[in-house]
Parts: sequence; C-alpha cells; structure tokens
Amino acid sequence: MSDFSKQDIECVLEEAKKFKRFSKAQKNRFLEDKTIGTLFFEPSTRTRLSFSTAIQNLGGKEIGFAEAASTSTAKGESLTDTVRVVEKYCDLMVIRHPLNGSARLAAEVSCKPVINAGDGSNQHPTQTLLDVYTIQEAFGRVDGLHIGFVGDLRYGRTVHSLANALTHFKVDQHFIAPPELGLPDYFKKEITKKGLVKEHTNLEDTLPELDVLYCTRIQKERFPDPLEYEKVKDSYTITPALLGHGKKELKVMHPLPRVNEISYEVDSTPHALYFEQLANGLPIREALLTLLCNAQKEERK
Amino acid sequence: MSDFSKQDIECVLEEAKKFKRFSKAQKNRFLEDKTIGTLFFEPSTRTRLSFSTAIQNLGGKEIGFAEAASTSTAKGESLTDTVRVVEKYCDLMVIRHPLNGSARLAAEVSCKPVINAGDGSNQHPTQTLLDVYTIQEAFGRVDGLHIGFVGDLRYGRTVHSLANALTHFKVDQHFIAPPELGLPDYFKKEITKKGLVKEHTNLEDTLPELDVLYCTRIQKERFPDPLEYEKVKDSYTITPALLGHGKKELKVMHPLPRVNEISYEVDSTPHALYFEQLANGLPIREALLTLLCNAQKEERK
Amino acid sequence: MSDFSKQDIECVLEEAKKFKRFSKAQKNRFLEDKTIGTLFFEPSTRTRLSFSTAIQNLGGKEIGFAEAASTSTAKGESLTDTVRVVEKYCDLMVIRHPLNGSARLAAEVSCKPVINAGDGSNQHPTQTLLDVYTIQEAFGRVDGLHIGFVGDLRYGRTVHSLANALTHFKVDQHFIAPPELGLPDYFKKEITKKGLVKEHTNLEDTLPELDVLYCTRIQKERFPDPLEYEKVKDSYTITPALLGHGKKELKVMHPLPRVNEISYEVDSTPHALYFEQLANGLPIREALLTLLCNAQKEERK
Repeated sequence: MSDFSKQDIECVLEEAKKFKRFSKAQKNRFLEDKTIGTLFFEPSTRTRLSFSTAIQNLGGKEIGFAEAASTSTAKGESLTDTVRVVEKYCDLMVIRHPLNGSARLAAEVSCKPVINAGDGSNQHPTQTLLDVYTIQEAFGRVDGLHIGFVGDLRYGRTVHSLANALTHFKVDQHFIAPPELGLPDYFKKEITKKGLVKEHTNLEDTLPELDVLYCTRIQKERFPDPLEYEKVKDSYTITPALLGHGKKELKVMHPLPRVNEISYEVDSTPHALYFEQLANGLPIREALLTLLCNAQKEERK
Repeated sequence: MSDFSKQDIECVLEEAKKFKRFSKAQKNRFLEDKTIGTLFFEPSTRTRLSFSTAIQNLGGKEIGFAEAASTSTAKGESLTDTVRVVEKYCDLMVIRHPLNGSARLAAEVSCKPVINAGDGSNQHPTQTLLDVYTIQEAFGRVDGLHIGFVGDLRYGRTVHSLANALTHFKVDQHFIAPPELGLPDYFKKEITKKGLVKEHTNLEDTLPELDVLYCTRIQKERFPDPLEYEKVKDSYTITPALLGHGKKELKVMHPLPRVNEISYEVDSTPHALYFEQLANGLPIREALLTLLCNAQKEERK
Repeated sequence: MSDFSKQDIECVLEEAKKFKRFSKAQKNRFLEDKTIGTLFFEPSTRTRLSFSTAIQNLGGKEIGFAEAASTSTAKGESLTDTVRVVEKYCDLMVIRHPLNGSARLAAEVSCKPVINAGDGSNQHPTQTLLDVYTIQEAFGRVDGLHIGFVGDLRYGRTVHSLANALTHFKVDQHFIAPPELGLPDYFKKEITKKGLVKEHTNLEDTLPELDVLYCTRIQKERFPDPLEYEKVKDSYTITPALLGHGKKELKVMHPLPRVNEISYEVDSTPHALYFEQLANGLPIREALLTLLCNAQKEERK
C-alpha cells in the first residue's frame, strides 16, 4: 500500500465508480486477449473469486491455481522461479502468499505487473482500496471521520494496509485491542508520524466516538494463555446491544471471513456495511486490472 | 427432489431432449453474460465436470472451487457467509456439501437460485433428473416398469432422490439390500404412502421381475462387523452370469463411481446403460441452468 | 515418445514455428467449440498452465482437475472409468498420472485422442517436443550436436523421452550420473541400438565436448545412504565457474522445476536456455492441440 500516493488511490476509486455503473456488455472487452495469472499459495474465497469474476467480466483469460499443493512448489521450486514460469504465459499476475514481502519479490523478478492479493501478515492492498471506496460511498467523504479498528491488530494485514492508506486522509484512527494483539511497534511509529493515532483496550468506552468500526478476527492461537483469550474475546464480540452505545450512523465493516466477532443479528441492522463492502471488491478489481493492463492506452494526464 | 411436481420433472426432461439435439452453435449464447458459482465442498468428478461443460457450452462464465480446503471454510467461515459472498459475484449457484440440508439452507439465505448437486446422504436431484431421463429414453416410458435398487440404500442419496421422484409415476419399486443397509424408516414410510414398495434381501430371486436394476456402491465402512460385509458383498456383485437370470431387456444403471459392484465384463453387454446415463448428465444440466437463468424470459405457459 | 516417427516430430515442430509467430487474434478460433479435458493426477505448474493458456489462446474450453484428491479417484474409481466419464464431455484429453503407462491405458480405453502430459518415471513427450524445438531454434539444427544429460537419469521421465526422440537424429548422447542414478538397463539397451551413447560419472571432464547440457533434479530420497548423496550432489551443481570449462556456445537446459542443480548466477549468462525453453511450451502445445483436434481438416499430405 505504501506504493500508492493519495492521487493513486483517488484515481483507482474514480475508475471503480465507473465500473460499478457499467453493464456487463460495456466492460466485456477491456481485457480482450489478455491472460491473467492468479497464484494463490494460501486459501481464499472472496479475493480469488472476485478476481476470477472480474477477469471474466472484462473478457480476459485466467490461468493459475487455488492452492500450492498442486504446483511445483510441492517439489521445492522457489517463488522466484514459479513467477518466472507463469509470467511467460500471462500479461499480469495476482499473487497471494503466506510470506511477508513475497509479492514485492515477485514484482522485482517479473517484467509483468504484479498485484499483491495478500502477503502474510503484511499488506492486502486491493482489500484496502475497496475498504476506502466503501467508506467514501457510505459517508460521501473520508476526511473528518473517526475510524476504529478492533481485533487482531498485530497480525491482521487488512488493518495494516488500511491504516497505512488512511494516513493520506484527515482521519482520527483508533486502535482497540488487548495488549497482546496491539499494532506492531514499527508500524505504530510509522503511521503516528503521519496522523492521529489513539490506542484503547476497551471497546465499549471508545465506541461513541466512532463513525466506522473495522473488525477483524481475533485469532485464539496467538494467545500464550487460553484464559487470557477467554477474558478478552467477549468484550470484542459485536452485538446489536453493544452497537446501541455508538452513534446512530455508525457503520461496521469486516474484511470477512468472520468467525464469532460479529453476531448474526447485526447483519440486519443499518450498521452492517460488510456485505456492501464485499460487493465493492468487484468494481475495484475490475478497475485495477483494466488500469494495469492498459497502462499504455490510458496514460494518466 | 420433493420440490419437484410431476409436471416440473416432465418440463425439465422435455427441455433436455432439445438440448441433446442442439449443436454447440445453437446453444452457445443461452447463458451469455451469466456467471455461475460452483461450490464443491466435497470431491466430485462427473457432477462438477458436467456442470462445467454445460456452463461453457451455454456461453456462461464459471467461478468457484473444487474443494473446501482452498477456501475460507478452512478458516472457520460458515456456509451461510460463504453463500452470501459468492452470490455477490454470480447469477446462480451450484452447491455440493457433506451435510444433509445444506443446499436448502443456501437457497433460503441467497436471493439467487441454488441447485443442489448433492447434500450428504440426503438428495441428489440433478442425478435423479438424468436417471429418469435415461429410463424414459431407453424404454420410451417410465410408467409400468419394475425398478429395483440394490446396494447401500441407507446412505445413498441418489437412491433417495430417484425413489422419491418415481413416486410420481406408476412404477413398482423394489429395494434389495442387507438389513443393515436398507432404506431409512422415515423415508420408507414416506414413499410407501405414495406407491408400491417391496423390500428384498436376495438379488438373484428378485432379478427376473425387473426392467431396471439401479446399483450403488456398498460402503464397507458402514458394517459394524467385517465378516458381515464379506458375507453380503458378493451376492450384490453384478456379473454377466447373474444377469442371465434377468429379462433380456433388463437395463443396469449406476450413478458411478463404481468400485466392485459391477464387473467390467458387464460393460460390453446390452444390459449396461450406465455410460449412456452418464452422458445424459450434460443435456439435463444444460436444460436446468437455462431454465433457471432465464426464468423471466421463458415464462411457463 | 516411441509413437512418433522423425517425420511426426518434424511436422509438430514446423507447426509450432507458425504458432510462435501467430498473433493472439490469428489463433483464437482453432479450437472453437472444442472442449479439452485436463486430468492432472499429479502436481504440475508449467505443464498444466501452459496447456490452459494454449487452450484459451486457441478459443477452446477447458474442464478438468489439478489434483486427484478432489475427484472420484478419492472414492476408489479406476482410471479406466474416470477416462470413460471425462471423454463424454470433451473432444481430447490431456493426462498426467503417477503410474508408468497410464496415458497409454487411457488412450486404449478412450475413443478421443489422449495427450500424455507425464506418466510416472516413463515419458513426458510434450516436454520432449519443446526440448527438441528449443535445440533446433538455438543451433539451427539438431544433427551433429553433442548433447549431455546430467542428474537423475534413472527416474527422470524428461530424460527418457528426450533421449528416445534424439535417436532419430545424428547426435552423440552423453549421460553423466552417479552409478545409482544411471539410465535403466532396458532403456540403455534400447537407445544404444539406435545411436551413439556414452556414459560418464564426472561432469567437469565431459563438459568441454558438449553443445547442450540437459540438467535434471537429483532426488535426494533415491540414495540409500545420505553420505553418498552429499558426495555427489556438488559435482553436479551448475555454476558459472563450472561452465567456464565448456564451449563458449554451450547451452544449459532444464525442464524445471530446479531446486539446487543450477545456481541462480547462471540465469544471467548466455549459457542459460531454460527460460526460452520454458516459453516454447506454449507454441508446441498449441500446435499439438490444433493438429489433434482438427486431424480431419488438416489431413497430412
């Protein structure tokens, strides 16, 4: 995400707005004669399927894999070599990989554009772009908002990506987590330099200040002591009762999948924004693919 | 299958007859601009591949997965949430899942049509439609036939689906199985109310009455005592010698895959109907997809 | 590979040359209305993805699977039955399988053409065709060259296939391996009858004679004694220093994936031919698919 200037973000958002309005017939030739390689070394439902749908909607071709076990990675091939192989057959690569920095490595090795679809606990920039798009669509703006993150802020790549992007805007960022799952120090320093960052441990107390609550999954396995987990997990389960403490306009977002963090009763309240958020993955990815594959034609002015 | 009236079944069969005659060029735009989600949470060869082929023959797009391990199910996502995700990207969903009732749950949650491609030991309606189609094609009718089921009648979803559908026709249904693998009681009661049901344990004695013998795999692992399995398994292996006890016109069907239930020598006899049966999966699924995706245009009169 | 006469090989190479020059628009209807089944029972990256790309470039449709676990093979279905199923849905099959002879079995069972994409330690003919193509492209000829194979010559199917094909040409074949991993006896006898075959254990001494060095992965697990492996593995690691002992025009090939056999520094030397080799997989497979699917129209004169 740190490769994107504010202008870059706005450019993608502007394009995505067009793609959201386009009919299928209007967009079905943007990737004509283009082949996109989708390399998913880690499980994924929504990211992979939304890229697949986008590629097909735009008239492109897709090659790739949904899991590393069926590839030569299982025979010990390096990521570098796999990238050099796949780039022979495609015009652009989308890559998800369990190791931090893997997408950047791929981009350095390859002469074709590479989209990071999630690298370890580091970044998930296409998710971030759709997150910013969703906030802007819901509130008509990003500036001036109070945005809170709750859950696993240490290992959550969607949090790191989005917090990074939001430093380009005039927002107050609130981070709510048990101490064990707070922001990594290096990351906190980095974003604090650029904007307002507040840390909290109590969600209920912080809630009234927020316009957006961005939830992530708390990963039980990160806790050294199971009793510690039991102690905190319930304070971070979002229920209609808890949301009663927040503003009327408060929106709840979640990159999904959720496990227990948001109760199903929230789904039917006006606070739930996560299914709209999800649907925005499609125009954002259509816009990105089109921009990158047609960079020559669509030269930015 | 219980959602289908006799008229519904006949409607699909009638459509499928057309699709069987169509050239590729005649059908390659029926699903234009439609995206079909294929969600296979359980292994499948023929059901998944025949849906894929059908979607492509009809000019549609496909997104989905062939196994749950590469999806967010592996991260603990509920079926409900997965369905809500995929429906954002597609116009219709095909779902196979190990739990009984999963397809109905998906259909209730989703605002897009859902096709059940097999749910646990419960139902497998698209298999049933192609089974009935195959019987009608082979005999010119369904009414008046004696149809026998042999093998695992307790857990076999293809048996439950087909037996259910056949209650709409005037057929005698014979169920041949060891007591351990007989029809579930609730199911037997249900279909006995609607038609003639006879239970047997000896296949050889029952064979001369039958026009169709529908075989399924006997699952060794269901038997509490391996010796019990050894005792019964051979009485249910279909060989040319055994078929000598049947009518000359007797047809053997099997949803496949088979393991040992039908010896390979049967394949070249005129009794073997299972490869034609298999091929009928394509026009049936093409017809179903087209009917469901174009429900508005093709309003039934 | 033994099904191919010299003329057959040359015919495919000639066609591939055309496909390498074709623009995407020129070739996107060769497989119109054709469905190709890709059955990968074993992991593969480049073979599977290059077939996928070829099929899509030619306007064909693809059905299939990338791993056996998601198919009925997991339920005990025989290869014979799986082939009979898939052939109902497609016009041609591509098959990779861990057992020697599996592709031949499939071809005997099926009435549709079958392409062997690698069967156990036996053969890998599409790899061989692209290997011969690459040699011819690099040197302008195959006759008269000294071609060395190094690595696991016992189990390497790419070696067996290529050595077999090269017996049609006037080449000197050199085989460099530790005794444990030398050519299988039956195979050595067979090719010795047809051409010049020399065996070596020392790579450095043999290198100056060679025009082409074809490397394969040494599989640690084949060695009965790990110390034996440690002793030989380094003598077969290709480095720029080692290549200094060879001709200036020496070309290094590798079917990939590599693990440690070729150091990354070789990649940027003029000796490295393996990425061009890899890229040739596409025109070779496009040519083969087109020739086989349109056999009627393109009758060889």
